[in-house]
Amino acid sequence: MGSEEWAEVTPDAARRLLTAGVQAFAERGYHATTTRDIAGRAGMSPAALYIHYRTKEELLYRISSVGHRLALELLRRARDSAGTPAQRLARAVRDFVRWHAEHHTTARVVQYELGALGEDHHAEIMELRRATDATLRSILEAGVAEGQFSVPDVRGTTVAVLSLCVDVARWFREDGKRTPEEIGEFYAELVLRMAGCAEQQRKR
Amino acid sequence: MGSEEWAEVTPDAARRLLTAGVQAFAERGYHATTTRDIAGRAGMSPAALYIHYRTKEELLYRISSVGHRLALELLRRARDSAGTPAQRLARAVRDFVRWHAEHHTTARVVQYELGALGEDHHAEIMELRRATDATLRSILEAGVAEGQFSVPDVRGTTVAVLSLCVDVARWFREDGKRTPEEIGEFYAELVLRMAGCAEQQRKR
Repeated sequence: MGSEEWAEVTPDAARRLLTAGVQAFAERGYHATTTRDIAGRAGMSPAALYIHYRTKEELLYRISSVGHRLALELLRRARDSAGTPAQRLARAVRDFVRWHAEHHTTARVVQYELGALGEDHHAEIMELRRATDATLRSILEAGVAEGQFSVPDVRGTTVAVLSLCVDVARWFREDGKRTPEEIGEFYAELVLRMAGCAEQQRKR
Repeated sequence: MGSEEWAEVTPDAARRLLTAGVQAFAERGYHATTTRDIAGRAGMSPAALYIHYRTKEELLYRISSVGHRLALELLRRARDSAGTPAQRLARAVRDFVRWHAEHHTTARVVQYELGALGEDHHAEIMELRRATDATLRSILEAGVAEGQFSVPDVRGTTVAVLSLCVDVARWFREDGKRTPEEIGEFYAELVLRMAGCAEQQRKR
């Protein structure tokens, strides 16, 4: 799971530092973590860390950027997939929920430490969040246009659906009763209900 | 808002320390905050802090305990109110969402710093969370028993509804487009849809 998540990050040392950063930030919070802590977890010296990341903030930014891009990519693939709006919405929710369950530690760091990003990095991440929002919204709009969904407030529903899915990262436990796939399947059903998709349409 | 939230905490100095703790934990995280920081924000000496709270953990525990009890109390009042299950569920969601929007800083600290509680305090808070879950679940069960709701998985739906409402604390902004009341009203509608409550029943 970890290697798949960070596969795009090279070289190996840079990737090890990112995963060490995720663990340290998740356990102690960004502000209580030093670059020395992170380097130590990765089995490296502080000097070796600075070869790959100039600051602790740059490391957080890279974690946030990779996390946001992967989640956005999932939604874009669902939006562009074949099928009815209901099928595309179900796929979007299943994949987004599964990602937030499987990568719950990364997702929590990414969501809860946004305020620690520098101004330019924060603006860049906000751009990715707007794109995420727009991607899900376009599926809801397509369903409304085709008469498959009945949504009085598409923008508000978009925020609520993303919020429901993201918050899986907060409560998901690896030793819990349900797998990420099962939660994703169940949430797809709940979200189709939120979208006012009639029962016979949900299976189409 | 702040004074209403902490009204039960006396004397005044103990209450000031709690609100200072919430601000400090929210800005820097629990582990990066010292009791000296908190005392300073409250305009007190570290020694004065220890009169009211023996440790930083005890202060977090008090914040968490007050926050959880207030949120549970809202749900219990909704559960025990007059009206159909749909009306009680709508009230529960409206009040719970409004609380999490108005007290978003406290709610974030309470939710994100659970892991920092000591073992006994953690167990006590988990008991409050189980009671919160059971309270909302009982409204859903009543609606199913009366044929007003159609929920294939009451436990899973309970978790999802609470999660949706709690996560308002993460994304709510005081300068955003919607008031806490408006978000609560909209979420009540979304949750009645999740509960499979037919449109004509939602108004009853």
